[in-house]
Amino acid sequence: MSVAYRDLSRERCLALLSESVVGRIAYCSAAGPRLYPVNYVLDGDSIVFRSAAYTALGTEVAEQPVAFEVDQVDAVNGHGWSVVVNGRASVIADPDDVARLRARSDPHPWAPGVRPLYVRIVIRRIGGRAIGSLTD
Amino acid sequence: MSVAYRDLSRERCLALLSESVVGRIAYCSAAGPRLYPVNYVLDGDSIVFRSAAYTALGTEVAEQPVAFEVDQVDAVNGHGWSVVVNGRASVIADPDDVARLRARSDPHPWAPGVRPLYVRIVIRRIGGRAIGSLTD
Repeated sequence: MSVAYRDLSRERCLALLSESVVGRIAYCSAAGPRLYPVNYVLDGDSIVFRSAAYTALGTEVAEQPVAFEVDQVDAVNGHGWSVVVNGRASVIADPDDVARLRARSDPHPWAPGVRPLYVRIVIRRIGGRAIGSLTD
Repeated sequence: MSVAYRDLSRERCLALLSESVVGRIAYCSAAGPRLYPVNYVLDGDSIVFRSAAYTALGTEVAEQPVAFEVDQVDAVNGHGWSVVVNGRASVIADPDDVARLRARSDPHPWAPGVRPLYVRIVIRRIGGRAIGSLTD
């Protein structure tokens, strides 16, 4: 089966990222690929999420290349979109930066507990595609 | 902020996988982590999706360890769930198996074009968590 789709512009991809709150982050650990849902915010041209210091995600993801994906699919009506980002994750060390992010939005973590780490993904590559009636 | 969540049983995870149609697959390529949305079906205890032979996904994923994630999140009301599978991907070579899958459901591919490859992820590990009012 062939499905009509369109590539999305960088601007449209960033706009879609700014409107969503849950994405998925993937990275390569020593034991293989890892994939987690995270709540996030778009902060300028980068993605910020919170994690805990002692989880697998918190300890393994820093300074790693990562892929990050957000989508919205209406399977019944056959339309939707997906945006994939590639970049590098780093723990935000600047207390002023953390305070600014906390004041601005404070993305809720998916998992429970204290989330002392703010992790930033600087976007190196971004691409997206849409199926169906999404306007671009 | 602390958020109440619960781990989901294997049976509940499989039931949630059986009710959804779109997931995300992650694997480690030579150039770093890769992450794609795919339409899929749960086929017994494994996940099956279609891909094209000459895409990055189609050429890179075979015989690789992969992670696969499905979620459903209601950010407004603060509940949702996520299921993550770890396993190994393999291209289905048996024509009878392909014919059976095609007759059964034929998961629609996310990307366009001919999708001659059926890829199976045999579930090695499965886990899930829920936040909020999902009953288990």
